[in-house]
Amino acid sequence: MIAEACSTPLVTEPLTDLEAAGLAHVFKALADPVRLRLFSLIASFEGGQACVCDLTPYFDVSQPTISHHLKVLREAGLVDSERRGTWIHYRVRSEALGRLSLLLAPTVTVAG
Amino acid sequence: MIAEACSTPLVTEPLTDLEAAGLAHVFKALADPVRLRLFSLIASFEGGQACVCDLTPYFDVSQPTISHHLKVLREAGLVDSERRGTWIHYRVRSEALGRLSLLLAPTVTVAG
Repeated sequence: MIAEACSTPLVTEPLTDLEAAGLAHVFKALADPVRLRLFSLIASFEGGQACVCDLTPYFDVSQPTISHHLKVLREAGLVDSERRGTWIHYRVRSEALGRLSLLLAPTVTVAG
Repeated sequence: MIAEACSTPLVTEPLTDLEAAGLAHVFKALADPVRLRLFSLIASFEGGQACVCDLTPYFDVSQPTISHHLKVLREAGLVDSERRGTWIHYRVRSEALGRLSLLLAPTVTVAG
């Protein structure tokens, strides 16, 4: 989980073992082309959310495979899910993305 | 490589196959606790650079293992390396980190 990782930029001070383990888990979720495409595809749908039925047509893999990848993204805290009738809807967690973006921000060196 | 991946935020429009593959490669490099600790450790050294000899004491793994992890970070474009005498020195590539940070930035929804 990103919340269990750390909140200061990666380059500010050395990560602890615990922070590194939490963060590696999040990056592992993003370290797959299908999951990355899924993630950016969900975000590009209206309202930043989509159901599995919206996503499947964009991929050559089966629906259970898509569902598995979505589960990995959810377990890493990158998307939220909500069941509506037959389908599960997924939403990109902007706050998690924001934390990750901040974490990777390079520090600014002030001269003088 | 980050440069081969993409320059617009992940949530702005769906990634292409090529962009997703390039980006997954970079995240894979970061998806390891030892590499993450190495990366943040290098950044925290004076001048944002360190030699393998500086880094090894912080880890329980062998120097060849550290060197292997550094090679993965270098191949992903996250660090630069330069040989000085016996040792190879590593430097965090702030520009690559900045691109990655921008890529993960959530889009701002403007009301009205």
